[in-house]
Amino acid sequence: MNAKTDFAGYEVGFDIPALPGMDEKDIQTPCLILDLDALERNVKKMGDYAKAHGMRHRSHGKMHKSVDVQRLQEHLGGAAGVCCQKVSEAEVFARGGIKDILVTNEVRDLAKIDRLARMPKLGSTVTVCVDDVKNIADLSAAAQKYGTELGIFVEIDCGAGRCGVKTAEAVVEIAQAAAAAPNLTFKGIQAYQGAMQHMDSFEDRKAKLDAAIAQVKEAVEALDKVGLKPEFVSGGGTGSYYFESNSGVFNELQCGSYAFMDADYGRIHDAQGQRIDHGEWENALFILTSVMSHAKPHLAVVDAGLKAQSVDSGLPVIYGREDVKYIKCSDEHGVIDDPNGVLAINEKLKLVPGHCDPTCNVHDWYVGVRNGKVESVWPVSARGKAY
Amino acid sequence: MNAKTDFAGYEVGFDIPALPGMDEKDIQTPCLILDLDALERNVKKMGDYAKAHGMRHRSHGKMHKSVDVQRLQEHLGGAAGVCCQKVSEAEVFARGGIKDILVTNEVRDLAKIDRLARMPKLGSTVTVCVDDVKNIADLSAAAQKYGTELGIFVEIDCGAGRCGVKTAEAVVEIAQAAAAAPNLTFKGIQAYQGAMQHMDSFEDRKAKLDAAIAQVKEAVEALDKVGLKPEFVSGGGTGSYYFESNSGVFNELQCGSYAFMDADYGRIHDAQGQRIDHGEWENALFILTSVMSHAKPHLAVVDAGLKAQSVDSGLPVIYGREDVKYIKCSDEHGVIDDPNGVLAINEKLKLVPGHCDPTCNVHDWYVGVRNGKVESVWPVSARGKAY
Repeated sequence: MNAKTDFAGYEVGFDIPALPGMDEKDIQTPCLILDLDALERNVKKMGDYAKAHGMRHRSHGKMHKSVDVQRLQEHLGGAAGVCCQKVSEAEVFARGGIKDILVTNEVRDLAKIDRLARMPKLGSTVTVCVDDVKNIADLSAAAQKYGTELGIFVEIDCGAGRCGVKTAEAVVEIAQAAAAAPNLTFKGIQAYQGAMQHMDSFEDRKAKLDAAIAQVKEAVEALDKVGLKPEFVSGGGTGSYYFESNSGVFNELQCGSYAFMDADYGRIHDAQGQRIDHGEWENALFILTSVMSHAKPHLAVVDAGLKAQSVDSGLPVIYGREDVKYIKCSDEHGVIDDPNGVLAINEKLKLVPGHCDPTCNVHDWYVGVRNGKVESVWPVSARGKAY
Repeated sequence: MNAKTDFAGYEVGFDIPALPGMDEKDIQTPCLILDLDALERNVKKMGDYAKAHGMRHRSHGKMHKSVDVQRLQEHLGGAAGVCCQKVSEAEVFARGGIKDILVTNEVRDLAKIDRLARMPKLGSTVTVCVDDVKNIADLSAAAQKYGTELGIFVEIDCGAGRCGVKTAEAVVEIAQAAAAAPNLTFKGIQAYQGAMQHMDSFEDRKAKLDAAIAQVKEAVEALDKVGLKPEFVSGGGTGSYYFESNSGVFNELQCGSYAFMDADYGRIHDAQGQRIDHGEWENALFILTSVMSHAKPHLAVVDAGLKAQSVDSGLPVIYGREDVKYIKCSDEHGVIDDPNGVLAINEKLKLVPGHCDPTCNVHDWYVGVRNGKVESVWPVSARGKAY
């Protein structure tokens, strides 16, 4: 046994698709790879945009679930903290040293509330969303139990049709209850219009966001009238951040997918009618896959199927190739239309996943690549943290 | 610090949705739960069927990815070994003590072939599929390097349209090459018709399987003529096992989903026109989820979205409820149509996933439940092992 083998004589790194220093061509597939140059350019660009527009950026960690990517967003992109969706995710970021954590979601289960109220003891500022005044007493009781402070955002449903209240009156009622409750601080408004982010046309997205902004503005004015001006008005995604940034109402962004990009987001268009993956953002995330069968001349089979991605937003797209097409996905296989039979066994292809968030959630590692070499192997730290 | 807390005073079991002995109502959601009584009945029933029909059953571990479930299938259901799809999966089963492992897939990458050839040293019989005669030399060289034996199944594409050869001539060519190659043994035929398993009508499935059986029979006869009668003719799934079992050609089954069931399989019909989840198999696998927002009177939001399941085969179905319906799935949320506003905050629902295999692959744990108590918490041992 030496440093490279375990007790049974197996190499270490057995369960890891790559090791730093390895040539890109030796990476084991299927796995997620990150083009580190593209990632860094995306992160810097969004950071510069937010700064130029006087916006705070709390980057959304539900997309990458990675403490390392979050650190990059903070250090290179000036992000002021992380958003996440689940208490278990927030715990991973808190333990990873991220100091400002916003749970952009409601937490109702008493055991989860108890965990949330303990989290500031790990050294992070913790804020959570509320859409029901009945939630306030439970959150306050748990924070009192631990002697901690929880920030409260009131969530407005500004069109996504999921969580959140609809009226300014409901916002004011919850904000007042939070402001009055021991160990809670009313901090702001959560207003993320998730339903419009993937609409193809810029004008369609703008119309939805104009309505959302008007709704949020009304709530902010109602809060102001009762002396509860929100410190943060937070929202915005990769398909909308310019609307929030120029709204005069929002002061915080929550973008996630811009850093990695995916095929579904790539298809939406900017104000000039150009696809956003043709200039606005670069594809930094890929599923690296290998051809593992070509028994039929015009059909190749690759090793990335449903266990290596989520196809909820469509099939993956083969990056940089027009001659071959990913046409079918089963559990462990992708079927590739290869009309001219150009693909060779063991040839590697880079797939742009249909939807990055749930695709990242099935993988354990991000293999970071630069100049043909593996530079980093980062864990998907909060993978599977859904509770 | 005591046995129940870590260095920071946090309870252990923090990242686990349940602990054995806990009441079912205290399980943290979302998570996978197994109805252990239903699971055991399914496993026993398939074992009895296989035995009564003189079939060997190599249960498919790609579905559950769990050493514990596989052990149950062997001990209670008489399964003779495990099928899996990836080398990394096979390694988990080998290290977990499963003695007979069939990789129902091609392995072409030289690093993966090297790992496969070492695996018999862990104490398991290892068999792999081949659909290209060029693969034989690489497999033989690796097995010679380690002084191991690899079994070879020739894969026939009998309708699934993925891997596998189409003609009896191609089968014979590969079988002869395997029989002649040092440290390889020609063992049999892999013939799984994956494309027909989910067809609703029994007659449609029968027509597809009749064609597959004829194709396999021709290959077996051609092999027999050259003195290479296959020891195993293997295939069959939850939607077809009775066809293979009564074919006179197949002698081994590879069923997986029957043990857990899912919504997509549940909708197919048996010979009597009855749904197979209404008698043939019981739902043993559920995603347990909680209502976490009900800000709109007719719309509830639960905590199981795309990070808790795969929706490639449709949305999940709420078990045992006709009054509420899962109608939309986003990353962390499920939207429930609740026309009469009957759901309460923190109320738990059991979801039958659309497709069990990729749903199991996003979870880390199976929480086994019996009589309202948590009896077991089993790891999804090979979760994420896609390479």
